[in-house]
Amino acid sequence: MSITVLRLGHRPSRDKRVTTHLLLAARAFGARGALYTGTRDPSVEDSIRRVREDWGGEFTVEFVESWRRALREWEGGIVHLTMYGLPLQEVIPEIRSDPTEKLLVVGGAKVPGEVFGLADWNVGVTPQPHSEVSALAVFLHELFRGRELEAEFPGARLRIVPQERGKLVEELTGRV
Amino acid sequence: MSITVLRLGHRPSRDKRVTTHLLLAARAFGARGALYTGTRDPSVEDSIRRVREDWGGEFTVEFVESWRRALREWEGGIVHLTMYGLPLQEVIPEIRSDPTEKLLVVGGAKVPGEVFGLADWNVGVTPQPHSEVSALAVFLHELFRGRELEAEFPGARLRIVPQERGKLVEELTGRV
Repeated sequence: MSITVLRLGHRPSRDKRVTTHLLLAARAFGARGALYTGTRDPSVEDSIRRVREDWGGEFTVEFVESWRRALREWEGGIVHLTMYGLPLQEVIPEIRSDPTEKLLVVGGAKVPGEVFGLADWNVGVTPQPHSEVSALAVFLHELFRGRELEAEFPGARLRIVPQERGKLVEELTGRV
Repeated sequence: MSITVLRLGHRPSRDKRVTTHLLLAARAFGARGALYTGTRDPSVEDSIRRVREDWGGEFTVEFVESWRRALREWEGGIVHLTMYGLPLQEVIPEIRSDPTEKLLVVGGAKVPGEVFGLADWNVGVTPQPHSEVSALAVFLHELFRGRELEAEFPGARLRIVPQERGKLVEELTGRV
């Protein structure tokens, strides 16, 4: 299943690190790319581009002006992560079995009420306050049943060789 | 299994929001409490205290001066989350079956090499760069096999009633 993340309401002054963490988690846990609204932030886009150049894969980030248009024009299913939504563990089987491309909407500071209405599923990853980063990661991990942990990222310049102790990073040469 | 999170090297100027997200994810996904090193930050401690007062449970945060002492004096097992470590999916059965209380160490900006040696398990939640928030959440979600999603937080003042659309928050009265 193809997943695109939509991050709402990015504010460069406050959200730079959290949005970067969110987008990196989206990439690492198997989303194909992300859109974001709010204020355009080239430094966040650069961070993601550099990670893609070093660590591979096709994940891209694109600023869009209007969340409303992004939601209305989306042709697949829309999942909105919110602590007020139905429990992840109850709705994930239905979402998994729906074959359409999904837009996975993740809030910023204030989520417009309209988003709840435009979403096909409002999903709570626990009904507790935590973080859009943890909610997104656990949602994708459940959606993909943990298979995303084994994902390969083609075209990487660097690759970690997992170690019991310490760090081993291979530099890959000869990539196309 | 009882889990205490140790957040290394908090810097109030840069890390306030990410550390707050990390600690809230630790609470929501079933850790009993957290320690942190770096620079003491009463505003982060206050955020966590307010969440506990509103949403219940016993999760507490404590500043400690020395990560080295915290690691050396820990009597149970030590798990260090690092992208350089052994894959989560390979080591989690062994960690689950070890009955000791765990210290779950989560890096900040620069993790001293000594931490890799003091840990019983260096665990990679994917070998990709993402976020300590997503790594922590997915680790706890796997450790507790998703049962943490159903956790109750006693003493809450507020409780969300999950909805298909919109928000419903109950205010609880008569709590002890």
